[in-house]
This record gives sequence, C-alpha cells and structure tokens, in this order.
Amino acid sequence: MRRIAARTLLLLAACSAAGQNATDPLPSWNDGGPKQAILRFVKNVTAEGSATFVPKEERIATFDNDGTLWVEQPIYTQFAFMLDRLRVLAPQHPEWRTQQPFQAILTGGAEALLAGGERGLMQVGMATHAGMTTKEFESIVSEWMRTAQHPRFHRPYTQCVYQPMLELLAHLRANGFKTYIVSGGGVEFMRPWTEKTYGIPPEQIIGSSIKTQYEMRSGEPVLMRLPEMDFIDDKGGKPVGINEFIGRRPIAAFGNSDGDQQMLEWTAAGSGSRLMLLVHHTDATREYAYDRKSHIGRLDKALDEAIARSWIVVDMKRDWKTIFPEASVRGSEQ
Amino acid sequence: MRRIAARTLLLLAACSAAGQNATDPLPSWNDGGPKQAILRFVKNVTAEGSATFVPKEERIATFDNDGTLWVEQPIYTQFAFMLDRLRVLAPQHPEWRTQQPFQAILTGGAEALLAGGERGLMQVGMATHAGMTTKEFESIVSEWMRTAQHPRFHRPYTQCVYQPMLELLAHLRANGFKTYIVSGGGVEFMRPWTEKTYGIPPEQIIGSSIKTQYEMRSGEPVLMRLPEMDFIDDKGGKPVGINEFIGRRPIAAFGNSDGDQQMLEWTAAGSGSRLMLLVHHTDATREYAYDRKSHIGRLDKALDEAIARSWIVVDMKRDWKTIFPEASVRGSEQ
Repeated sequence: MRRIAARTLLLLAACSAAGQNATDPLPSWNDGGPKQAILRFVKNVTAEGSATFVPKEERIATFDNDGTLWVEQPIYTQFAFMLDRLRVLAPQHPEWRTQQPFQAILTGGAEALLAGGERGLMQVGMATHAGMTTKEFESIVSEWMRTAQHPRFHRPYTQCVYQPMLELLAHLRANGFKTYIVSGGGVEFMRPWTEKTYGIPPEQIIGSSIKTQYEMRSGEPVLMRLPEMDFIDDKGGKPVGINEFIGRRPIAAFGNSDGDQQMLEWTAAGSGSRLMLLVHHTDATREYAYDRKSHIGRLDKALDEAIARSWIVVDMKRDWKTIFPEASVRGSEQ
Repeated sequence: MRRIAARTLLLLAACSAAGQNATDPLPSWNDGGPKQAILRFVKNVTAEGSATFVPKEERIATFDNDGTLWVEQPIYTQFAFMLDRLRVLAPQHPEWRTQQPFQAILTGGAEALLAGGERGLMQVGMATHAGMTTKEFESIVSEWMRTAQHPRFHRPYTQCVYQPMLELLAHLRANGFKTYIVSGGGVEFMRPWTEKTYGIPPEQIIGSSIKTQYEMRSGEPVLMRLPEMDFIDDKGGKPVGINEFIGRRPIAAFGNSDGDQQMLEWTAAGSGSRLMLLVHHTDATREYAYDRKSHIGRLDKALDEAIARSWIVVDMKRDWKTIFPEASVRGSEQ
C-alpha cells in the first residue's frame, strides 16, 4: 500500500511537472513579478465579458529591436554591417584613403565610427545604404546576415536574439496579438530576416528609412535608394511612426532605452488594459550590463519614468533563465 | 409522367439558380472578360501544388480609393471636406475675407478651389488639415462623414462606394488575400471609416500624409498635425509607399487613373501570377463617364499601357450590374 502510494505520488508529480511545462508559455522566464505581470495582462485582455477585455483587432504590441529583441552591444548590429560594408566598398573608393570620416573609420573601426558622431554616422550610412535598388540592398543584407558573426558570442546575429522575448512574442500572437517591431534601425535592414527570426512579417516592421525613388531601368521598374534620410524612428519618432504605419495605439509596448520612452508613454496614455515593459541589461556574465551611462542603448530617463509609473522593468540577470536560443536549434532553422 | 418531369425540371432549374447565387462571389459583375479573369486569377493563386500557386503571406492586393472604390466626381471627396471645413473655420479667420486663395474659394466654392492649382490646394489643405491633434482630426472627419452627402446621389459618401468592388474585396479576403488601400488621399482622412465601409483595418491604409510631432499637452502625450507635407502617395509615390509600408510587392493592383499607373507597373514587374485592373468610368447615367481629358481622375497614359499590356479594363457600363450598394442595407450598417 505504501509502495503504491509512493508511486502514485511520483506519477502525480511527474504529470504536474509535465503539465506545467506543457502549459507554461514562458519557460525561459524565472517566476517573479515580470513573468506574472505579463501572464496576468494577457489573461485579462483575452477574458471575454470582463472589464479588462480588449477586442482582437486592437491587440497591438510594439517591440523595439536593438537591446529589446537582440543584442546591441558592443555596437548596434547595423553599425557592424556599415563597417564591413565600408571595407567591401573601399577598393572602389580610392578617395576614402584621405577623405574623412572614411579614412579614420577604415583604419580605426568601431571606435572611430562612434567618435565621428551623428554627422560621421550619417555620411557612412549613406555611403553604405544608398545608391542601389531596394532589391539589391535586400540581397546585400541577407548575404551579410548569413555570414557575419557577433564578435563575442561567435554566432550569427540572428542567433543573438533573446529566447525569453521569442517566447513572449509567440505567447502574444497565440492570444490574438499583432506583433510589430518599432525600431530606430533601418526598416530595410530588418525586413530580410525578421520573419524567419521573430515570426514578424515585413509589413509589421516599422523603422528608420531613407528616401526611395521609382525609376525605369531598361524597361524594368526599380526603387532606387537615395542618400537622404526620410524618417528617424526613434524617441518622439516612435509614436509618429506607430500612428503613420498602424493608425492604432498599441496596448503593449516593449523597449530597453531612452529611445523607447515616448513609445511607452504613448501606449500608457490609451484607455483600458495596458502593458509597458523595459528590459534592463544587468547581466555582464551572460550578456552585458549597462544603463544610464552607456553610449549605446542608454537607459536613464526612461528608467526613472518606469520606476515612477510602475512599468515593468525586467532584470535580465534575475528574470531570465536563459538568454539566447540553443545554437543548434536556431542553427537548424536558418 | 410528363407532369412529374416538368416539376423535376423546374426543381432542378431552381436548385441550379440557387446554387449559382450561393457560389457566385461577384453577383454584381456581369459575365464577361473582367469577371472571368478575376475568378480565374483567384483560382490559380490558391491552387496548391500548381505552378500558379502563391503562398498566402504573399497574397497582397492594393487598391486605389478615389474612383476605384468610391466616387471621385464632381470633385474628390476630400476636396468637398476641405470646402466644408473652410466654411466652418471662416468665422475664426476674418483675414480670409481678403486673403487669397481663401476669399476666392469661400465665395467661389469647388470651381475656385480647382482653379487655384496645386499651390492653392496645398494652402487650403494645411489650413483645414493641420493645427490639431490626430485625435481631434479623427473626430472632425468622423463627424463630417456622418453628416455630409454627395451632391448628386444624396447619400453619405461612405454609401457612394462601388458594390462590385466590395464583392471583389470580400472575395480576395475569403481567399487569403490581405487587402490594402494605396491612395493619394490623406491617410488620416480615410482611416476613421475604411474598416466599417470596406473591411480594411487602419494598418492596411496607405495614403498621403502631413508631418506630425509628438508633444506633451498638460501631461498628456499628443501627436500634433503640422502644416507640412510628409509624403504624397500618388504616381511613382505609390510603389514607394507600398515598399515602405508593406515591404512586399503586391500580386494584384486595382486603379482607375494615371495616378495608379506606376503601382500597376510595379505589381506587373514581379514574377509569378499577377492581376492588374483599371476601372474605366463609362457610365454617365448611373455614375460618371470620363477618362483622357478629366481634371479629376484622368485616365490617359495608364489606359494606353493597359491596352498595350492586356491589363484588365473594366467598362463600368458594360461590366457592372449595379454601381452602389442598396442604400437601406448600407444605411443600417452605418
């Protein structure tokens, strides 16, 4: 009898563990405030007949990309792309051997790029991102993404994405949410790989953009990428982009830096159920630790506002069981 | 025996008629080339395993609005809105009594507005469309749409939509298409009513836009509409807008004027199954008849290209059984 009871208990425990695994949509999140708040929010907005219910078509969730969905240190991935691209193009531009900021960046790399400030970045950005058709640029980005590796994690950048956030994206979509990226990064730098990596289709990617122009090239219509900024999707630009592209206010917004503050404010200012969340990079061992003083992804004023307004602040070290997807699993998907 | 046979035949005929009605997704289209081409195209792209099959996520269809989905004569609906709005605002602008183009338009109406050319239109556009928050503008448009009537058809503008095109939109969506509007009209002039009228949600409306700016107003974040053009979604701007907002090339595009020519070219230039269609306004009795010489919705070069490239040209008079939805039916939905 005792033996039977023990086996029954074991069986029950096993079932319960299996049940928990099977039903936990966020297995890479440690139990705690952020995980509970996310699960509660999703439950509330999908509870038909309740005061917290939100109709499916209004379940819009917007995610920053750099530092929120994937690594942004030691420099934004798009900056790494710029540097590589500059080196590829250099042989065709002998003038860069003496011309600034090109000469400095070609010899000094990332540090020189960051030292060149806004103006230098813009010059290098235009030299590497304009002057080709949208189709050509898509091929360039796709090829680079296939071959480039993160300098510290030695894996493709598309595998330097946060496993807990992938689970969060999937959980929201499973509950009728439309998930969007709203990033300061270039929209055409993201679209070639976001569907495969995040499950977010091109039409749900909002980002910074340069102007394009419709032209006929030997009877074939093309869109030429011009060396002129069109839209900067950062800070106050994020609500502007959200309004322009989506035309609805999100009910959930996810970011990690001061560049996301206005997106979270805009989301918070709507009526009904709301979720505002910041990822705080606190894990120098498994990823990076930075906030108020970082040049990349500074989190300062937004952190103060998050604390003052009780927005969710994810402590990466405490709240995330794992950081990245298992390389083999992701690798096989690429 | 003969009586039974006759009854059987009658019964069969009735069943057949009922069956035809039940399965004809385009009942307001007369049988003929355009209807057959549409039905064939939809069948082809949804035939799994066939060479003409297109995966669901790539089934993007883009529709012009003015003259393609709703009436654009005697003037674009948004121009009628501008004129009404100008009259509403006039008491607050005593300077308009002498200032041009305002004085001329306030006394001369639509003709004076059109006579003022691009520059006059822009001035009146900014005076009526900017200087308020996006939320305030949405209320202004919604209220106007609720009360304004078309001068000839004496019904709300949202009932001056084409019944055959409503059926086409529904048929495409029933077959996995994502339907978009890509219009020269203002995006925020359309979004308040397009979901109810066409079943197209705000995030699938692409249009012309003015700049907006994120501001705090007594602690509340707002988007202020600035008197400055941001994007003109017409002619070559249509492929630009499609690329910027959707990031995929449509496989079907629908227009009615030279402003849609580049959108149809861009669509046609993709590989695989394609459908390009122009609505030709040929019915002065039931709607309007105009093409090469019209100031509104001119169809000249695009008509030549459509004929040369065998795009579908809908002859409104010949191909459409009905033009507008039954007023009572639409009315009850409003």
